[in-house]
Amino acid sequence: MSNRITELFGIARPVVAGGMAWCSGWRLAAAVTNEGGLGLIGAGSMTPDILEENIVKCREAVQGRTYGVNIPLANPNAAKVMELVEKYRVPVVFTSAGSPKKWTSWLHERGVKVAHVVASSVFARKCEEAGVDAVVAEGFEAGGHNGREETTTMCLIPAVRRATTLPLIAAGGIATGDAILAAEALGAEGVQIGTRFAFTAESSASEAFKRVCLNLNEGDTRLILKKLSPTRLVANKFRTVLEEAEARDASAEELLEIIGVGRARMGMFDGDVENGELEIGQIAALFKGRDIQTVAEAMAEMQAEYNAAKERLKEF
Amino acid sequence: MSNRITELFGIARPVVAGGMAWCSGWRLAAAVTNEGGLGLIGAGSMTPDILEENIVKCREAVQGRTYGVNIPLANPNAAKVMELVEKYRVPVVFTSAGSPKKWTSWLHERGVKVAHVVASSVFARKCEEAGVDAVVAEGFEAGGHNGREETTTMCLIPAVRRATTLPLIAAGGIATGDAILAAEALGAEGVQIGTRFAFTAESSASEAFKRVCLNLNEGDTRLILKKLSPTRLVANKFRTVLEEAEARDASAEELLEIIGVGRARMGMFDGDVENGELEIGQIAALFKGRDIQTVAEAMAEMQAEYNAAKERLKEF
Repeated sequence: MSNRITELFGIARPVVAGGMAWCSGWRLAAAVTNEGGLGLIGAGSMTPDILEENIVKCREAVQGRTYGVNIPLANPNAAKVMELVEKYRVPVVFTSAGSPKKWTSWLHERGVKVAHVVASSVFARKCEEAGVDAVVAEGFEAGGHNGREETTTMCLIPAVRRATTLPLIAAGGIATGDAILAAEALGAEGVQIGTRFAFTAESSASEAFKRVCLNLNEGDTRLILKKLSPTRLVANKFRTVLEEAEARDASAEELLEIIGVGRARMGMFDGDVENGELEIGQIAALFKGRDIQTVAEAMAEMQAEYNAAKERLKEF
Repeated sequence: MSNRITELFGIARPVVAGGMAWCSGWRLAAAVTNEGGLGLIGAGSMTPDILEENIVKCREAVQGRTYGVNIPLANPNAAKVMELVEKYRVPVVFTSAGSPKKWTSWLHERGVKVAHVVASSVFARKCEEAGVDAVVAEGFEAGGHNGREETTTMCLIPAVRRATTLPLIAAGGIATGDAILAAEALGAEGVQIGTRFAFTAESSASEAFKRVCLNLNEGDTRLILKKLSPTRLVANKFRTVLEEAEARDASAEELLEIIGVGRARMGMFDGDVENGELEIGQIAALFKGRDIQTVAEAMAEMQAEYNAAKERLKEF
């Protein structure tokens, strides 16, 4: 399999592991890279010290294969993260939640490949203007932070495909080989997978969080916090409190006060799955009752599904 | 192209035109059927007299080819609609918004093929128990009435595919040949297309409504009325009034009072696009700036896109 995405990053399979807060430590990133995909370390939930440790360990584990770091640009540590990218010559940076203009040239001057995550074709065009190397289009069904337009992957990928000529990576709702093939049918050249890797053995999330993710029904995640920044959260005590506040039209300040500091860590990393914030995509419900897999097992299963789906399509 | 859906309905292409309120009169249904798909008359917005007229004219126009009627079972006229189905031997009925158990046996006894529309795999299993011939799984991105789970097409189709062995029709966000192929990759055997047919020349909707649909940006439709029955509506004066009421946590009664009677007709059929209710899917934004097409033009374009997408997939 070879296309613009595999060539851009020098990888064997056009499968990117989303750089997720509290899930995407060096173990997950390295495992996906070592399976031929592109593993990303999620800098969003790491202090610079912890990120440095993760970069060092990932670099060692992948032995020259391509890995990357995902950086939400709204992060107050973004500049420090970029210093580490330079220091360790991280080959790939995925940016999100901010303007792609801010760092793209700086990163290119240092030989770093840059992809930027968007939720609309308007922002996809801004990516092209900023000169990024690839765009990630992420639909409404994705976990965590999300676009205000609520455009789903099925509607977003064709829109972004028409809005830009950039290499296009589809994200949101993609966790099986069938869906990888569907994303390609819609015009994507690669996929970014978050949810399915969040509950693999190599994910740095707590076992309690992974177990919750593997026991969800359809409808158990919901996009809330539209007054702040729309975020897809799993139903639990914490979300109920937020939803009650939203139902009485609570102010943004009030919502921020309820959230406080460290909620996502509490839920996803420390494993307090009732009082903490749990971010996962809608597609988790497809895995209800399944066991925690290794990255190698998940990648092999997706490859087999992909091959089978492709055979099946020939019959149409 | 031949599969369980084409065989079930005796059609050449596994493309169903959704039976949409105020859009799906006999002209649209007959045009889609005459292009080799399955056209549905939307009984939801018709009095029994008007429906009868539409059935008679559609039957004449399709000259023995398969057409059908879509019936929201919550409709107070549902029993009268069924009388007309029997009287005119309508070959296919799609039911929605109610229990598939209610009419399926009765329809089967009269030789009618039955499909039921669902928004979750739980309801898909109920369809199988009720003995329907096919299930339509419709995602969050679809226009008009929608499921409470907010599951998108990308997540819903694989879930329903795993939940039942029934012939599966995907709906929601499908308006191009690429998306038809994507739906097949996800496990569907056919598609139901609403949005794209709603603004064809043959749609019975007002020209003003069609023009609005062909000028939407991403994010211009939104799922609201979650307290009543979640409905995807186009941004206009009417929706703003509803959203303001929802923001102050208005009761269901208050919302019903604002909506009043005949809002959808006002917006979609009479063409008061500011004060009326406008229902269309997210994928409309993909057609911004396009002209109104005939059904034949839309079908030919989708077929060409489908063929091209399939060729493109071979390269992966």
